[in-house]
Amino acid sequence: MKEDIPMYIDQPIRHFMDKLASKSPEPGGGSVAALTGALGAGLVSMVGSLTLGKEKYKDVQPQIEQLLKESEKLRSEMQDLIQKDTEAYGALSGVYKMPKNTDEEKAARTAKMQEALKIACQVPFEIGLKSLEIAKLAQRAADIGNIGAVSDAGVAVLLAQACAQSAALNVKINVNSIKDEAYNKATWTRMQDVLKQVAALEKTVMETTYKKMG
Amino acid sequence: MKEDIPMYIDQPIRHFMDKLASKSPEPGGGSVAALTGALGAGLVSMVGSLTLGKEKYKDVQPQIEQLLKESEKLRSEMQDLIQKDTEAYGALSGVYKMPKNTDEEKAARTAKMQEALKIACQVPFEIGLKSLEIAKLAQRAADIGNIGAVSDAGVAVLLAQACAQSAALNVKINVNSIKDEAYNKATWTRMQDVLKQVAALEKTVMETTYKKMG
Repeated sequence: MKEDIPMYIDQPIRHFMDKLASKSPEPGGGSVAALTGALGAGLVSMVGSLTLGKEKYKDVQPQIEQLLKESEKLRSEMQDLIQKDTEAYGALSGVYKMPKNTDEEKAARTAKMQEALKIACQVPFEIGLKSLEIAKLAQRAADIGNIGAVSDAGVAVLLAQACAQSAALNVKINVNSIKDEAYNKATWTRMQDVLKQVAALEKTVMETTYKKMG
Repeated sequence: MKEDIPMYIDQPIRHFMDKLASKSPEPGGGSVAALTGALGAGLVSMVGSLTLGKEKYKDVQPQIEQLLKESEKLRSEMQDLIQKDTEAYGALSGVYKMPKNTDEEKAARTAKMQEALKIACQVPFEIGLKSLEIAKLAQRAADIGNIGAVSDAGVAVLLAQACAQSAALNVKINVNSIKDEAYNKATWTRMQDVLKQVAALEKTVMETTYKKMG
């Protein structure tokens, strides 16, 4: 299955867009959430890159190096998650096609389905957790980064928030079909906590951004 | 200048990401806002495409055709704006390099600068206006589209909102340097109105989405 799905990251943006707009169910909202998060991390890296080695910001160089290291790691992970969401969806679609003629087949299909649903849920859950990390980095970028790029730190936190909320929607879809109530409760509670933290960071970073822009 | 800037839409996503994260000031927050809007429009198209021709949704087929027509138009326009923002930024950078040794040179540079700033402001302003149209389409997609793709309509409105707010930040940067107060007031007032409308749509569409997901 994995071999059939193209690596979107290595294809033209136009191709991703056209496929997204088509009736093909993938790429869908989960992949778009990851791409949005990757764009947010990329903007944090941009603010970092525009601060690195600048005399005016010499006092924060070690922090900027650390920021860049973290934002580039998150960007890479988010870029991978674009594909992982598509793969998890592909695996789930495969299970939907399993035979269900006999009780045995039905039981096997149900078990596999629950397994595939948890994987499909885990991907947007991870995207959500990482969006919180990106929002935290956006705050640091707005606080100590090149003031000339502060609006980019602002856009980064807005994307982190859209990413978190989009990830939550995709967690919710799967949770609705998963029968493991303890898993559902733990996952959804954590997701809600992430949304709350990201929303608070968004508010703070936007205030900083508008204030610094003057 | 235009010839020097690559068409990002035709290049791999990875290339856009790497360039974004670099110290090159373009692509920046404005291009990312347009890309985010294009992703939102693409998700509306996806919901439309997954509803088109479906027996279960036969009563809304004319509306779905119209929705798809509008979302694909907006997607195309947003995709163009990714590039336009980069070009406007490039033009502005060119003006910054103009000589300012004599009073005459200074006056010529200032005049050109004000012109270039208005163009650089107009691009995110257009992105903001279009994000409102995308949010409206997301609402229609959530209301009448395939219920199995309702979370994608939800993600679409989240992206429209991130796009609107990101566009506003980029309008604000330019407005801060433009000396035409009447232009600034008209532009910023309209932008604030767009943000208010998009925020209201986001609230409504998210309620619909979570309700329909169950």
